[in-house]
Amino acid sequence: MSSELKTLEWIGGVDGYLRLVDQTRLPTALVHLDCRDAETLFEAIRSLRVRGAPAIGVSAAYGVCIAMQSCSKADARAMAARLDEACDYLATSRPTAVNLFWALDRMRAVGHAAIAADPRSAPERLVAEAHAIHELDRQTSRNIGRHGAALLASEQGVLTHCNAGGLATSDYGTALGVFYAAQEQGKRLRVFVDETRPLLQGSRLTAWELQQRGFDVTLICDSMAAQVMREGRVQAVVVGADRIAANGDTANKIGTYGVAVLAAAHGIPFYVAAPASTFDRAIATGDEIPIEQRAAEEITHGFGRATAPIGVGVYNPAFDVTPARLIRAIICEHGVIEPVTAKNIASMLA
Amino acid sequence: MSSELKTLEWIGGVDGYLRLVDQTRLPTALVHLDCRDAETLFEAIRSLRVRGAPAIGVSAAYGVCIAMQSCSKADARAMAARLDEACDYLATSRPTAVNLFWALDRMRAVGHAAIAADPRSAPERLVAEAHAIHELDRQTSRNIGRHGAALLASEQGVLTHCNAGGLATSDYGTALGVFYAAQEQGKRLRVFVDETRPLLQGSRLTAWELQQRGFDVTLICDSMAAQVMREGRVQAVVVGADRIAANGDTANKIGTYGVAVLAAAHGIPFYVAAPASTFDRAIATGDEIPIEQRAAEEITHGFGRATAPIGVGVYNPAFDVTPARLIRAIICEHGVIEPVTAKNIASMLA
Repeated sequence: MSSELKTLEWIGGVDGYLRLVDQTRLPTALVHLDCRDAETLFEAIRSLRVRGAPAIGVSAAYGVCIAMQSCSKADARAMAARLDEACDYLATSRPTAVNLFWALDRMRAVGHAAIAADPRSAPERLVAEAHAIHELDRQTSRNIGRHGAALLASEQGVLTHCNAGGLATSDYGTALGVFYAAQEQGKRLRVFVDETRPLLQGSRLTAWELQQRGFDVTLICDSMAAQVMREGRVQAVVVGADRIAANGDTANKIGTYGVAVLAAAHGIPFYVAAPASTFDRAIATGDEIPIEQRAAEEITHGFGRATAPIGVGVYNPAFDVTPARLIRAIICEHGVIEPVTAKNIASMLA
Repeated sequence: MSSELKTLEWIGGVDGYLRLVDQTRLPTALVHLDCRDAETLFEAIRSLRVRGAPAIGVSAAYGVCIAMQSCSKADARAMAARLDEACDYLATSRPTAVNLFWALDRMRAVGHAAIAADPRSAPERLVAEAHAIHELDRQTSRNIGRHGAALLASEQGVLTHCNAGGLATSDYGTALGVFYAAQEQGKRLRVFVDETRPLLQGSRLTAWELQQRGFDVTLICDSMAAQVMREGRVQAVVVGADRIAANGDTANKIGTYGVAVLAAAHGIPFYVAAPASTFDRAIATGDEIPIEQRAAEEITHGFGRATAPIGVGVYNPAFDVTPARLIRAIICEHGVIEPVTAKNIASMLA
């Protein structure tokens, strides 16, 4: 992406701040949000101004840096307490994103070590660590793209759900990273994008991102994916992931599981593209993944106006879990896991 | 429905008028529109203030009565000309509604016969015929409900897509008529309603209608149906139909086919409820049913606000076709067709 399209960017040095693209304003306005305190960043994560597991992880790492700026460098004990407080606080901004916990754990460990060694150097060490997490995410995206692109052929139709693109990561994306890498290899793809109700990440973000990069993109409602498959317009599905269990069961945006069932019914390979950090090997199967329930208003007032009767019951799970048996392969930065089994996952991540 | 919730109602005698629920104002306002001239009714049909094939047919029949009110009863030739003019005019209000043409043909034939016999009695005869068409639609809905309700058990969760309810007919509905009949039999159902993008007939109309009748109703996005099924919350799916081929392949609102695939994958029976007039036996299979493509703005500008980037490609089929093999049974006013085969359909409609 061009500089102004950077999903997130740290501006300045140890006393810097995090500049985010406010994704709730896309696609009609490209607005940046400067986070100069942890509360602003927390609200940005909670309200999905920044979203996508990798981007949340990187943002939260910078959030720890911001939180430490208000802390005296003289008192190691106070610094350590502030570090724990910041990590605990930011960890509650979204319940399902494992990258968030991963990044915060890493910042916490590095921070405590730095404070113990030399409190005055700790802020700088934390910013360096956040930069490292950021850079790792960039490299991870590129590697996922490279491995995944090998699975796609030119002139194929592909379908994706939600936004696992440059806007969901700090640079290139996971599912969309696969499309970007294929494009860079000269493969021409026709990309179908589910609009992804209720929050329309597909129409607002993915369609916008793909359009910016010159793709042949076709927006559909979620309810049209089955028909598009039946008409033979799609030869592969690629989606991202929020959390992957040890056996490959994958939590992702609500609607993903349905797309996986439809793909299986039409004999279309269904791929998950996600960094290794998305795997939660402490969880044996998807049954153990908690599903975040979100506010009814996302469905009843999704277009800025009431579209449902007042007081109607609403069920609004933010995620679903796609069982490993419906996933042809998982693409991570280390390679392609196929077939998706606990053993193959363990080998790849070893 | 209670009196004030009647989708359409003829008020008065031969010089009466047609009172419609303006469905474009639901669910936020219950506004009635009184049609005292044919032009008002024409606009109401064209703008979807009244919608659903059966309701359009009944409305148009009353529209002929209204058009004849301004006609002198002394001149048989002028009356006959006025009758043809009214029928021709109302037939252009929606291009593809089969029930519209059927109702107008019936009014035209009855009207000409009455004018020939006794011009002064013709207006009364036309109102009586419109009432008969209205009553026939009511009876059809009730019979579909009765046959369908036998397929459902109390305490079941059921799912429906789009609006095949009292608002789409003059009284009771097709798919929803099944739920209403079950409720009247004392069966308690939990009804899940797909919001039905892009035009949200599920959230705007079906959820409202069910709520008015005291149902336990839960609104979901179309993308959540798979998850709701996986969680074991749904034991049957019932939908309406726009057109059914001789072999049982069924065209209905876009998204219906996907729901049918998902139901099959979860072992959940999928039922179609539709009047016999919905069968088009001149069409052997669903492959011959043309799929209407609608405007991109329905997806990109849901409710007047841009939710997709300007200029993005859009695919917006209004209908899809569910193959007969995915339909457990078709419920019509004559009974239940199960299994769905060309032979069983022919027997039921004979």
